[in-house]
Amino acid sequence: MKRPLLNCDIGESFGAWSMGLDEQVMPLIDCANIACGFHAGDPGIMRRTVALAVRHGVRIGAHPAYPDLAGFGRRSMACSAQEIEDLVLYQLGALEAMCRAEGTQVRYVKPHGALYNDMMADPLRLAAVMRAVRAYDAQLPLMLMATADTSASRALAAEHGLNLWFEAFADRAYEPDGQLVSRRLPGAVHHEPAQVVAQALGLARGEPLLTRDGSALRLQVDTLCVHGDNPASVAAVRQIRQALDGLPA
Amino acid sequence: MKRPLLNCDIGESFGAWSMGLDEQVMPLIDCANIACGFHAGDPGIMRRTVALAVRHGVRIGAHPAYPDLAGFGRRSMACSAQEIEDLVLYQLGALEAMCRAEGTQVRYVKPHGALYNDMMADPLRLAAVMRAVRAYDAQLPLMLMATADTSASRALAAEHGLNLWFEAFADRAYEPDGQLVSRRLPGAVHHEPAQVVAQALGLARGEPLLTRDGSALRLQVDTLCVHGDNPASVAAVRQIRQALDGLPA
Amino acid sequence: MKRPLLNCDIGESFGAWSMGLDEQVMPLIDCANIACGFHAGDPGIMRRTVALAVRHGVRIGAHPAYPDLAGFGRRSMACSAQEIEDLVLYQLGALEAMCRAEGTQVRYVKPHGALYNDMMADPLRLAAVMRAVRAYDAQLPLMLMATADTSASRALAAEHGLNLWFEAFADRAYEPDGQLVSRRLPGAVHHEPAQVVAQALGLARGEPLLTRDGSALRLQVDTLCVHGDNPASVAAVRQIRQALDGLPA
Amino acid sequence: MKRPLLNCDIGESFGAWSMGLDEQVMPLIDCANIACGFHAGDPGIMRRTVALAVRHGVRIGAHPAYPDLAGFGRRSMACSAQEIEDLVLYQLGALEAMCRAEGTQVRYVKPHGALYNDMMADPLRLAAVMRAVRAYDAQLPLMLMATADTSASRALAAEHGLNLWFEAFADRAYEPDGQLVSRRLPGAVHHEPAQVVAQALGLARGEPLLTRDGSALRLQVDTLCVHGDNPASVAAVRQIRQALDGLPA
Repeated sequence: MKRPLLNCDIGESFGAWSMGLDEQVMPLIDCANIACGFHAGDPGIMRRTVALAVRHGVRIGAHPAYPDLAGFGRRSMACSAQEIEDLVLYQLGALEAMCRAEGTQVRYVKPHGALYNDMMADPLRLAAVMRAVRAYDAQLPLMLMATADTSASRALAAEHGLNLWFEAFADRAYEPDGQLVSRRLPGAVHHEPAQVVAQALGLARGEPLLTRDGSALRLQVDTLCVHGDNPASVAAVRQIRQALDGLPA
Repeated sequence: MKRPLLNCDIGESFGAWSMGLDEQVMPLIDCANIACGFHAGDPGIMRRTVALAVRHGVRIGAHPAYPDLAGFGRRSMACSAQEIEDLVLYQLGALEAMCRAEGTQVRYVKPHGALYNDMMADPLRLAAVMRAVRAYDAQLPLMLMATADTSASRALAAEHGLNLWFEAFADRAYEPDGQLVSRRLPGAVHHEPAQVVAQALGLARGEPLLTRDGSALRLQVDTLCVHGDNPASVAAVRQIRQALDGLPA
Repeated sequence: MKRPLLNCDIGESFGAWSMGLDEQVMPLIDCANIACGFHAGDPGIMRRTVALAVRHGVRIGAHPAYPDLAGFGRRSMACSAQEIEDLVLYQLGALEAMCRAEGTQVRYVKPHGALYNDMMADPLRLAAVMRAVRAYDAQLPLMLMATADTSASRALAAEHGLNLWFEAFADRAYEPDGQLVSRRLPGAVHHEPAQVVAQALGLARGEPLLTRDGSALRLQVDTLCVHGDNPASVAAVRQIRQALDGLPA
Repeated sequence: MKRPLLNCDIGESFGAWSMGLDEQVMPLIDCANIACGFHAGDPGIMRRTVALAVRHGVRIGAHPAYPDLAGFGRRSMACSAQEIEDLVLYQLGALEAMCRAEGTQVRYVKPHGALYNDMMADPLRLAAVMRAVRAYDAQLPLMLMATADTSASRALAAEHGLNLWFEAFADRAYEPDGQLVSRRLPGAVHHEPAQVVAQALGLARGEPLLTRDGSALRLQVDTLCVHGDNPASVAAVRQIRQALDGLPA
């Protein structure tokens, strides 16, 4: 098992509006999921965020979303598969241009928000995202959520000639099937830093998680999703970073 | 003197709204200036327009604009030079992704509408556009308006290591300095097909134009701008195409 | 039974893009459902459309939609009930300002596209729309689709102190429950003008419709929805208009 | 001389992005210039901001802007006079709907950012704004910047049958003609709270200001513009509020 990469949504400011502590969290992560202008980010912010990632040697991922600034890409939209394929391509290319201007390139793709959730729930949407990635560059891994049974998405990826990176969450409780416990339920989010770090370490070592009903869940974890929204979440990322750095490479 | 290429703004539909007779004009032109989503075009339209260009062996140019769908990119906006550089990059990359998905690539850049006019009038904005093109791919020619004295833009292009393509208009009257006669003045636009074709041929042969005050104007013409808005303009393009095809290559 | 009003979606151009034969269809209808800028329409188009309606003595209805220009408001969006309430209010007010400037006022509300469909399918969304109308002006009728059983929406309307106008379609085949036959099925849309006019007259006279399975369907029809998209649909509206004008008032 | 009102730009969050300390500054001001969705604000934010103003008994003003979310309405746009008239109307109506839903109404109009600057510099744009206000409700005062010579705008307002409210700035240095000293020059902005409060009091008492060249400038001041962006500016507003409350009414 390789030490998992830390990925974080970043570049989610827009115009005059600021969001996230990008400067603080960037030095701590491996992979920056950079907003591409549809849910957040604008050309200037995208370029500066790419430059910040380059400065810290962080891999850049495209973080495409539904076209919904007002809803921050969190509202599912009944886009057709073709629309999804094309809007992922559009955003990928837009970010790539910023990367090229800063001497780097897009290294992977992680859909955002409602598009991510819809893709996890609907194979037709997942296939649409995969067609976009394949049409753009089949070498780019697609980041998905690690669940108990990933055979269907792995089969679909194989069909598209794509690599998948599975991500898990250190700060969330899990259902037995590998879904996240709904935020409406108590205990869905771990607030204790110690618990978050322990879960990160367990996931990194390939140990099973204890799920909501007490059963053991083993996930394939290529990367852990972390957050840079506020000082507390950045502090948690710092602790996770240190804990992972202590593991054998 | 090489036979000038015919370039045309295209892919300017948006969502449910149609504009232009793209299917009819595409077979007649050499260079398709494809809208990139800021003044017109959306991901699906961009992709289908790229595919149409590929089908007809037409070179694809990025046609970036100010972010102003409601104004169709025709309203000047007080964007900073940095903002212009970044928004040109963004649009270039977005179109490139569509090209890649269709097995082709962006071959040149022609700014649209108010951005084009502002760039012609303001060296700071022209330099911003040039920085974007250079950062993206210094091999891509930038299309500018041919005027009587192009030394300043050629010097700026040389400084940026860029090639320029100069375009002229077969259907417009010219001022002695190579500016177009304002549409508010009588005779600004040629409506007689014969006159349009004659001006196209003259420009193609490197002959001087007769300007509004009767003086002779010699322009460097790499390409002629034509229009596919309506049946009459497509008919004019067809006549120009035939006339140019009769010239020695 | 009162002679049903003819309502038509109108003002659906945007910026430089034209849609619909508004000038031709406006003289033929009673109620203009005017786009409010979220799926179509911009401030200038809204104002000119209001002025056109005033010129022809046509009642003006607000035609609010999800915020989705690229999708023309036809893609369902997972907006919360509160978001729906607020976006309907916003669009209502925006159109009212245009009406005030042209010496008239908004007279009813008909949601557009996916918002209309979602409201018909989901009582929580219907209630959200109703709260918006009530908060704005409880005198404004809300236009809904006439179905076999309207008791639930009538109860909800009564609870909100609102009036409903039920609309039916002269050019569509019906299911026994009053839903429209899906466009994917053969015979879903009547293309024969004679059939369209006959259905319009039957609906106007309160006669039952023959549904897809041959059963009889009786609908409450306050208004018929007609279309002004193209010359054929305008011709159909003209025929329906004449047929209805021949009925006793 | 009446005690000047304190006005503040407010409701300038958008979607998931927060801006300004609205909750803290609202209790301190008299007039809330509420963003209307074109430069900031969305339907939900507008409604909540209106409700907040109602809770604190603050007059609500429409704060319309150019359609430029990415530029926060700070970039001048070459909109035509008719476009300006219509976009002001649109935004006024949209905010009015929120007011109506919260049991209040729009009480005045203050254009935002580049639209404000353009209107102050260009009588054609000022007249366009005035036509919008008159068409909507000629009782609504229009807020303009107080300068040394307001005769031209007063004449234009008289012609349109409108009232003007002139606003001044407690934290800015002035040129002899009543323009603000450019932010690029040293001393343009007062950072010392004592100086800000002193200037506010002087303006409130109708005393002349000392301008950049040492000359005395007397302004008609109906209202002072204050800011709620950050804790320091809110603290300054609190001090100004207290100082003004100490004046005879």
